[in-house]
Amino acid sequence: MSFRTPVTQFTKRVSHSTINKLTATPTTPLWNRTSADQSRLLATHVPPVTQDATSSRGPTAMVFMNMGGPSTTDEVGDFLSRLFADADLIPLGRFQNYLGPLISKRRTPKIQKQYSAIGGGSPIRKWSEYQAAEMCKILDKTSPESAPHKPYVAFRYAKPLTEEMYSQLLEDGFGNGRGGRAVAFTQYPQYSCSTTGSSLNELWKWRQKLEGKSAGPTVANDGSINWSVIDRWPAHPGLVDAIALNIEDKLQEYPEDQRKDVVLLFSAHSLPMDVVNRGDPYPAEVAATVHAVMQRLGNSHPYRLVWQSQVGPKSWLGAQTSDTVSNYIAKGQKNMILIPVAFTSDHIETLYELDEEVIGESGHKDTIKRAESLNGHPVFIQALADIAKAHLDSGIICSKQLGLRCPGCTNERCAASKKFFIGQGLGATFAV
Amino acid sequence: MSFRTPVTQFTKRVSHSTINKLTATPTTPLWNRTSADQSRLLATHVPPVTQDATSSRGPTAMVFMNMGGPSTTDEVGDFLSRLFADADLIPLGRFQNYLGPLISKRRTPKIQKQYSAIGGGSPIRKWSEYQAAEMCKILDKTSPESAPHKPYVAFRYAKPLTEEMYSQLLEDGFGNGRGGRAVAFTQYPQYSCSTTGSSLNELWKWRQKLEGKSAGPTVANDGSINWSVIDRWPAHPGLVDAIALNIEDKLQEYPEDQRKDVVLLFSAHSLPMDVVNRGDPYPAEVAATVHAVMQRLGNSHPYRLVWQSQVGPKSWLGAQTSDTVSNYIAKGQKNMILIPVAFTSDHIETLYELDEEVIGESGHKDTIKRAESLNGHPVFIQALADIAKAHLDSGIICSKQLGLRCPGCTNERCAASKKFFIGQGLGATFAV
Repeated sequence: MSFRTPVTQFTKRVSHSTINKLTATPTTPLWNRTSADQSRLLATHVPPVTQDATSSRGPTAMVFMNMGGPSTTDEVGDFLSRLFADADLIPLGRFQNYLGPLISKRRTPKIQKQYSAIGGGSPIRKWSEYQAAEMCKILDKTSPESAPHKPYVAFRYAKPLTEEMYSQLLEDGFGNGRGGRAVAFTQYPQYSCSTTGSSLNELWKWRQKLEGKSAGPTVANDGSINWSVIDRWPAHPGLVDAIALNIEDKLQEYPEDQRKDVVLLFSAHSLPMDVVNRGDPYPAEVAATVHAVMQRLGNSHPYRLVWQSQVGPKSWLGAQTSDTVSNYIAKGQKNMILIPVAFTSDHIETLYELDEEVIGESGHKDTIKRAESLNGHPVFIQALADIAKAHLDSGIICSKQLGLRCPGCTNERCAASKKFFIGQGLGATFAV
Repeated sequence: MSFRTPVTQFTKRVSHSTINKLTATPTTPLWNRTSADQSRLLATHVPPVTQDATSSRGPTAMVFMNMGGPSTTDEVGDFLSRLFADADLIPLGRFQNYLGPLISKRRTPKIQKQYSAIGGGSPIRKWSEYQAAEMCKILDKTSPESAPHKPYVAFRYAKPLTEEMYSQLLEDGFGNGRGGRAVAFTQYPQYSCSTTGSSLNELWKWRQKLEGKSAGPTVANDGSINWSVIDRWPAHPGLVDAIALNIEDKLQEYPEDQRKDVVLLFSAHSLPMDVVNRGDPYPAEVAATVHAVMQRLGNSHPYRLVWQSQVGPKSWLGAQTSDTVSNYIAKGQKNMILIPVAFTSDHIETLYELDEEVIGESGHKDTIKRAESLNGHPVFIQALADIAKAHLDSGIICSKQLGLRCPGCTNERCAASKKFFIGQGLGATFAV
């Protein structure tokens, strides 16, 4: 893992206040790093794990799971073909192997153009590597008993893929008879079977392939990696505070007399209604984030939770972000802030869909604004470290919620993967 | 307003622990009251309002708004015909006047049978009158500056209807040139245009009919009633605590070794998807309640938010409560607690739909249980008083949220009614 393109190219939306906040932290700001600094941030060369699973609590691998995105336009094709091959995300039934490649091939040129428009690729890898590395630095101080903490990134549809991350873990001395602890830390604050669920199913699959079938409750003593999971954190006060600070920053850009009546539109990626109706917990958890942010803001502004990125002929959960903006404009409301609330880093849905399409084509670019994504916000990095520290201290393997399949779930991979992760608790030395 | 049937008949589901809690309060328990006590609870004979709107802050009318239900089976027909005439709840377009009576007539015998099965009528009037009266007693102590507080109930589809309540207010000395303050306190904790919105539109309509067209910002000085609105309280700590206490009570009924894995199913009345997609705030606010309750419980149990009472051919928000229960049973999960989370009193959707249908027909009546509704729970009554006191102290007319129409709203009644209530702030002596 290394930075392939200068990180500065992804900072075009970083406001001065955010830069000030970032440069005020004791760490060297991201955009001033030398490549030597950068390689130190990453987890490619951890010392071999010398302890076994029973004698020490460190080192600890901290694995950031996310969907990922193509870092260059050349990677768009591969990215889309993995996306449409994922039945957890886009279930195409028995036509998956045929339809998936067909759809992804047809969409590639269009999506390549979108990535070109936002600077040639997704910044999600850069931000994920930065966030993981910075969080680990904090954890080394706040949780010395589980140090050193080693940052890894595992994307579902782009490099570094789950299998690459897992091979790296093994190469770095975890597992393969040597035990060691790893935390799968979802970077989706709200749990959906389409996102965190899919990443966990993938992690479980590669765990079985690369470390052999798990042997039930004794798994933790067979020298394989001990996994635990941070599976959701929708209303963590640090997350909530970071989002609220970005909203407050953006509000400052409005004239004082208009500021108090700006409408806040929290925008999250939508879900198809068949997933919602299956009992997916995501819509309720996104709502929990929004409610917590509004509480933190003292319910100072009118707001709505709206849903973006619907595609295809299916029914999706609404109201749609784009319709909402045009409907409010038609009603005479032109001061609005769009707030990304379900992804923590910039990606095509913020930089292109919200900025270029929804805002760019609204006819009101000056009064419809977007709050910054969390990206490298120090309050957010601190939140990640707090969430991880609480998890490490708790000895809990995963949330109670993770064990409960959706009422309408018929995916046996989900059942097996959930069983595996919950089972990690039974024999693990750091367990419940 | 008076109790027409003994309240005891509505207490069949009150657990011993709840009774103990209730009888431990200094007030006489509901079921021991004499009819003299009962009439004292109600607000039929308040002294005339002698102050004008600028010289004093009391008396204050506290108006509980809710949908209501037929108190006897004879009232079912009228109840349903009002329900199906309400375009805010069930929009039937230009066929409303024709289809509404047709549907309600056809459904009456079936619904009458359901009310017969739960004891001959809905307990919602008894509970509403009790809750309002008990809350006012607390408020008289905690908020002497706005005392005396006079309890009123205004139902949308059953007696006492909004117009009856309004006439009573005028008769009791409020308005009609004498000013006075009234608080419209929705008893739906989460706001929907179909529920609280409909009640407010109705209140605004009768305000215009009985006190004349409002004269804009000067309204508060024309001797009409000064209205303010408590329009939502989805995650008030007292509400959350009362729901959590009822869950904890119910958990005690499971053997200790099974208790920790009982699945909690929070069940709320569903909404048609066209209302959800219009941008109705209700699903997100219900989710906020659920998240707060689970936080209060320390996320101790796996849970889902599910949706009940879907009718007709339209798409409604899911997962459905009844499907969820049968799906989990099929997956081997038989310990479940259903938790009513969007109504505060028992009604046909708890006593019949959940108890008789979902649980009664599940084949697992012993292991699938329902948490008590809030009804007369003293923690809940205290919560109502705390919410009201905070509102009275704040000088706020309504939440910022109330002013924002749904993005897809085309209902001009909503626009006018919102404008009226927000406008109440401008000239009112207790205002912002």
